[in-house]
Amino acid sequence: MKYLCYIRYVGTHFCGFQAQKEKRTVQGALTAVLEDFFKASVMVTGCSRTDSGVHADAFALTVSLPDGALPIPPEKLPLAIAPFMPPDLALYRAVAVKDGFHPRYDARAKEYRYTVLSTPVLNPFYKDRAWQVYYPFVPDALARMNEAAKHLCGTHDFSAFRAEGSPTRSPIRTVFDCHVEKTDDLYTVSVTGDGFLYNMVRIITGTLLAVATGRLDPDAVKDILASRNRTRAGATAPPEGLCLARVFYDEADFQKETRD
Amino acid sequence: MKYLCYIRYVGTHFCGFQAQKEKRTVQGALTAVLEDFFKASVMVTGCSRTDSGVHADAFALTVSLPDGALPIPPEKLPLAIAPFMPPDLALYRAVAVKDGFHPRYDARAKEYRYTVLSTPVLNPFYKDRAWQVYYPFVPDALARMNEAAKHLCGTHDFSAFRAEGSPTRSPIRTVFDCHVEKTDDLYTVSVTGDGFLYNMVRIITGTLLAVATGRLDPDAVKDILASRNRTRAGATAPPEGLCLARVFYDEADFQKETRD
Repeated sequence: MKYLCYIRYVGTHFCGFQAQKEKRTVQGALTAVLEDFFKASVMVTGCSRTDSGVHADAFALTVSLPDGALPIPPEKLPLAIAPFMPPDLALYRAVAVKDGFHPRYDARAKEYRYTVLSTPVLNPFYKDRAWQVYYPFVPDALARMNEAAKHLCGTHDFSAFRAEGSPTRSPIRTVFDCHVEKTDDLYTVSVTGDGFLYNMVRIITGTLLAVATGRLDPDAVKDILASRNRTRAGATAPPEGLCLARVFYDEADFQKETRD
Repeated sequence: MKYLCYIRYVGTHFCGFQAQKEKRTVQGALTAVLEDFFKASVMVTGCSRTDSGVHADAFALTVSLPDGALPIPPEKLPLAIAPFMPPDLALYRAVAVKDGFHPRYDARAKEYRYTVLSTPVLNPFYKDRAWQVYYPFVPDALARMNEAAKHLCGTHDFSAFRAEGSPTRSPIRTVFDCHVEKTDDLYTVSVTGDGFLYNMVRIITGTLLAVATGRLDPDAVKDILASRNRTRAGATAPPEGLCLARVFYDEADFQKETRD
């Protein structure tokens, strides 16, 4: 039995998604709850890794039960395990999927959102939930950021937007959409792509911030991309503003749909 | 020298606004920061009290310095004290006011917002920030709540919406506006009035929730109000959903305006 599950977590007190010895991780915490619940060893496979402090509103993962385990209908799983979940982690949707389904390789796209709060004084409601930036933005910051963001859309070599020392997989990725929205002093950078290099969204955000403060011209992003040189892009934005917002699958991969 | 200041706080780890011995309160924490900063005894007077766990986005208070203390320009105060503030409390605006100004008696109105999240599974992002309600609402819950809310607008005896055993001040209050907005599964009850009885907004919210679930008819709120009987209104909603959103003053009370 294999479930595709959607979880939501506040990343502040997790050392990222992936299980590590002696550290509190999302995969570790969820696996412990599920193994207790099913009285069986359970395999949890994530759609991606997230760093310490990074949040998720819709992280997808599969839960595989061994042959002997007693399954429950997927639509009952969220409420059944809810009482045993830690307060910063919730599993809110489960559907049955075919055995061969893989949450990472079968994902068509992912959307990350990065939240930036422009404020001279820290806002306690956004502590650990946004990058709070105290230096001023230029008056047309939003338009400039969106102009810069357009250059990132499409299929490109994103070497300039990848943490140095990353493993040498292909740096080619397709960004389907990149745009910035603003509500009061809150800027949300949304990036949807077929895959992401290490720290890619955080470096994109740091670069768009340099555009927002006037340090970079929107068109400079085009040259930075072409340079494939990490040192030309902006700083890596801190983890607390980042949230995995959505993972896109082909619905044909699901055995059946259940309620949200 | 008297400043009118606006503060914002996450109420979760405060035992309310008002100073109490041996307890962590907003007034206590702020007074300690200000007395350290001004090297003088400072009088902090709030626009209201808030209970443990209740939040504020725009709580108004005055800070009075004794005659000997060295004042700083009000517009410099927020950034000057920011490094010394605890992470769940921020002072983000200050203006100079006349000596006779009182943040409670001079307030023309206050707006409270109460946030309710309708969700079968707890959402960790709203932990301690909303009342998370797992039982289902009727399909036209929003329209029903707004119909019920209308009956609360105007000048009424709000005895039915006051915690039992409250001190026997007049139970007459004027509600200028009461309405509910909905975004996805998040309902926000907004109540603006010239003053509030103890637990009034939380009892109003509990009553509107009874309307949302179909247990009460919208028009029943009219009868409950007329009954002046606390036992006929709904349950007191928990503190974590409540936030003081705005305090209204007559701008003529200010000596001069400064930047937000």
